[in-house]
Amino acid sequence: MKLTPPYAVFLGDATDRLSLKMANSIAAWRKEQCIGEITLPDCTVTTGLPQLSVEQAAELGAKTFVLGFNNAGGHIDAKYLPDIKLAIQQGLHIVNGLHDKLTDIPELVSLATQYQVDLIDIRHPTSRFKTASGENRTGKRLLTVGTDCSVGKMYTTLAIHEALQAQKINSTFRATGQCGILIAGEGVAVDCVVSDFISGAVEALTPDNEDDHWDVIEGQGSLFQPAYAGVTLGLIHGAQPDALVLCHILEREKMRGMPSYTLPDINEAIELNLTHARLTNPRCQMVGISVNTMAVDEKTAKEVCLQISQQTGLPCQDPIRHGVKDIIQQMMTH
Amino acid sequence: MKLTPPYAVFLGDATDRLSLKMANSIAAWRKEQCIGEITLPDCTVTTGLPQLSVEQAAELGAKTFVLGFNNAGGHIDAKYLPDIKLAIQQGLHIVNGLHDKLTDIPELVSLATQYQVDLIDIRHPTSRFKTASGENRTGKRLLTVGTDCSVGKMYTTLAIHEALQAQKINSTFRATGQCGILIAGEGVAVDCVVSDFISGAVEALTPDNEDDHWDVIEGQGSLFQPAYAGVTLGLIHGAQPDALVLCHILEREKMRGMPSYTLPDINEAIELNLTHARLTNPRCQMVGISVNTMAVDEKTAKEVCLQISQQTGLPCQDPIRHGVKDIIQQMMTH
Repeated sequence: MKLTPPYAVFLGDATDRLSLKMANSIAAWRKEQCIGEITLPDCTVTTGLPQLSVEQAAELGAKTFVLGFNNAGGHIDAKYLPDIKLAIQQGLHIVNGLHDKLTDIPELVSLATQYQVDLIDIRHPTSRFKTASGENRTGKRLLTVGTDCSVGKMYTTLAIHEALQAQKINSTFRATGQCGILIAGEGVAVDCVVSDFISGAVEALTPDNEDDHWDVIEGQGSLFQPAYAGVTLGLIHGAQPDALVLCHILEREKMRGMPSYTLPDINEAIELNLTHARLTNPRCQMVGISVNTMAVDEKTAKEVCLQISQQTGLPCQDPIRHGVKDIIQQMMTH
Repeated sequence: MKLTPPYAVFLGDATDRLSLKMANSIAAWRKEQCIGEITLPDCTVTTGLPQLSVEQAAELGAKTFVLGFNNAGGHIDAKYLPDIKLAIQQGLHIVNGLHDKLTDIPELVSLATQYQVDLIDIRHPTSRFKTASGENRTGKRLLTVGTDCSVGKMYTTLAIHEALQAQKINSTFRATGQCGILIAGEGVAVDCVVSDFISGAVEALTPDNEDDHWDVIEGQGSLFQPAYAGVTLGLIHGAQPDALVLCHILEREKMRGMPSYTLPDINEAIELNLTHARLTNPRCQMVGISVNTMAVDEKTAKEVCLQISQQTGLPCQDPIRHGVKDIIQQMMTH
């Protein structure tokens, strides 16, 4: 799955900033690849990109029109079709991160054929994967894992990759979810892969590489998340990580969307993730804790990170507030 | 996914008994539902069922024609089509456990429409599942887990269910793989479910039930299997088991198809399975070890089971040689 920037980001009639996770991800991490945003009249939110019409975006060189919003049910409503069709007629590829598929809408399929553009449903892998071999691969791999979903795994992974690039260390960001795929321009949405092939898909995503090369792999879910832990475990086994970074969020008492479940203890999460990771890579080490401290003030954030660092014997940082330097140092000495 | 017995079992041109796992499963566990077997001239193996033509099977009352073999790649070769078409013309539904789909073959689809029969690709779930809620359900559940794939989980599950039925204990066998589905007449092939929905599919398969009712759930894979452990973990979380039975096989040194991996220690397997199972059901207990002792003689089998029982503090039996009475006793006192 390869995408073609630059992008025109379509927000539809979104009124909730949280529904713009895809649009905001690409605007935050690959602003230079974004021409602008396109909205329906009822839209009340923005990514901060210039507001354009479809025609203006095409004139300014956009190659791909991205459905950058989500909605309940993930439906491609009829109200979105006029802009999508116009974009196709302007020669733009369409990227869709909703559950519904563009390729299930016959009028879009025939229009896309006519204008020779691609309809790309990035949640739905098109490759046929093999089951995992479990065989050791060359090169090094880091994977982020979490105490819960939505704790900052993608952000942490991208921050580590950027910091490695700044230090001229040979690395590739490997995307495993829709927002990451949009940022990387390629990847596999592992939660949409048939379960027999989770680990095999991750093996294919992170193949043999040079000895000094790091694949920096976006994690998904959590071993402690009762709905998605299977995805997480398949991802851990397929990644064969040399290094794990545990991501955590402060002041969240219950697992996201799971009012009967509390977040695990950090040391318990370290131990269980390492137990599983060492099945396919016995050399795996936990190299740091990444904490989303957004809920507390600067001073408390520092104190909590110090405390977690003392409890775990590992560097602990908030990538947004403190960067990831200590974590990378630990990773490179491993 | 509901199937309609009685069955005519098609063996194609199979020459390897191991390729007849589906045919042998239904012939072994639901012989009364099998009218007979149908073969191509080159077939050299048998299930022991009466040999019939398609027409004879239909005359004798067969309602469903089952593709009971597997082959490399799981292809529906052209050589199988004449018998499949004849079966459709005789008014039989077709059940297919190969990877290829009957519903991808237009001439079969149109013939099935004409004769008003169903083409059922049992590896490919047709339901749209929800993600798991993680919420506690009423009724009791037992799940088999394994130290590896193909150690006897389905056999053990069916043996426990039969023994419960014999004791008039309220129970249902819940199938999670293709052979189990054929035997039960319904179920979900969890390894074919999109990974986001593994646990949700298992929650749907084993819903709220009467307080004294046991769902006896077929396990899949192993937490120690580097290709399929994600499926296993999703199944464990979705099942919310009150009781686990660990299945093991003697004299197998390497994980099946994985020459770099050895089987785990039994106590380690007990501990890791319980750790995960207790996330969604804190009351979960391991109630016994089921050992496939086929590789050793009767006396050694007894000795090994006694030794495992002493090491683990749990009943240990080979369901084929010793039945499952001790395991059930432990399960019912739990």
